[in-house]
Amino acid sequence: MSNIEIIGLTGLPEFDTSHNLSEMIVEAAFSSAGGIKSGDVIVVTQKVVSKVEGMVRDLLDIDPTPKAQKLATKLGKDPRLVQLILEQSTEIVRTDFERGVLITESIHGFICANAGIDSSNIEGDTSVALLPKDSDASARKILNDIRRLAQVQSLGVIISDTFGRPWRDGHVNFAIGCAGMSPYIDYKDTIDAVGQVLKVTTICIADELAAASELATGKSLNIPVV
Amino acid sequence: MSNIEIIGLTGLPEFDTSHNLSEMIVEAAFSSAGGIKSGDVIVVTQKVVSKVEGMVRDLLDIDPTPKAQKLATKLGKDPRLVQLILEQSTEIVRTDFERGVLITESIHGFICANAGIDSSNIEGDTSVALLPKDSDASARKILNDIRRLAQVQSLGVIISDTFGRPWRDGHVNFAIGCAGMSPYIDYKDTIDAVGQVLKVTTICIADELAAASELATGKSLNIPVV
Repeated sequence: MSNIEIIGLTGLPEFDTSHNLSEMIVEAAFSSAGGIKSGDVIVVTQKVVSKVEGMVRDLLDIDPTPKAQKLATKLGKDPRLVQLILEQSTEIVRTDFERGVLITESIHGFICANAGIDSSNIEGDTSVALLPKDSDASARKILNDIRRLAQVQSLGVIISDTFGRPWRDGHVNFAIGCAGMSPYIDYKDTIDAVGQVLKVTTICIADELAAASELATGKSLNIPVV
Repeated sequence: MSNIEIIGLTGLPEFDTSHNLSEMIVEAAFSSAGGIKSGDVIVVTQKVVSKVEGMVRDLLDIDPTPKAQKLATKLGKDPRLVQLILEQSTEIVRTDFERGVLITESIHGFICANAGIDSSNIEGDTSVALLPKDSDASARKILNDIRRLAQVQSLGVIISDTFGRPWRDGHVNFAIGCAGMSPYIDYKDTIDAVGQVLKVTTICIADELAAASELATGKSLNIPVV
């Protein structure tokens, strides 16, 4: 594999629970990318998966506990958002009160800011999207639907989300769910270009594909699938 | 930007200090990728930059201090390698004796394993490659050379290296040097797809391009430029 094409699927709507995401991906792939071919990997942003799965919450419906209120005051965050973050987390990993940053281990096992909850690209001033309950399961469902609809068996599906990284400036897209492919390529014990055995490198190809996909999606281009 | 093509440049040699890297990139781009176009980003792996810049060391030439010897014993690492790592670091960030992992802040400012020193894809059982002294300067040199040779002004050059990440399994490629382009896209204050102002997201497009490039280079395919 030395040439790769990243195609952003255009013409997709603002998704909500009334949409069939897989059907619309297949239609958009046929109309804007010449269809889906064997070996393709489809990267879907977390936001649209959360939207079609109904993982959007209105902060007006949230009643923050005293703990959330106290933490929110220190962080300069909305107490209702902090309440949701705490509900979606198993552990607080780091609180940076000066910068208003709350890093937690989410109930899904991700170490990330705000348990992955955010408000970008969601209609309504008080609406936020939680992560899908089980992004691997979401990816499997999309995989199976697209296999059936596009009549292509050999496919990968990745759910991507935008994460910050310790010790690095800027955010990049990571994989939070994956189906139809291994998220890793293990180069251990393979032979490198000068004939030596590689010792340790396990490449997270799913994260690389997620990062690559962001190049075609952007944050505000309304291209949620690649 | 919604479609992106990643082309691995084939036919490049095992580089050493006798090679003109930029010339060979331009030749390979013309013979295997139809040339270099305005707006292209060229991603070069750290390993070949280190090789052409003479940043390869033979462990046989290294005389470890008692401090390096002591640390090496605890880590189960070669004391000469530990000596080099300490010389290339300003601070030890983490030592995991059980796993033999040494995370440092390198003299270049990267928080990574072994100050970025490694032995894959290098001829000789005792040879290791250090990071380029100044990867931004290396990228600028390659940028200027390629601009002149290929007669293309609007270009980006990224030097990539493979890093592990805290709290994530598997390695991915990061940018350690960049020229001709901003490493970041700042979406702050831009309007998202539902008309709201995005608040915080600065995307590290250089890291995403580096990660994307790895999909076409692999670890053992001898494709060091994308």
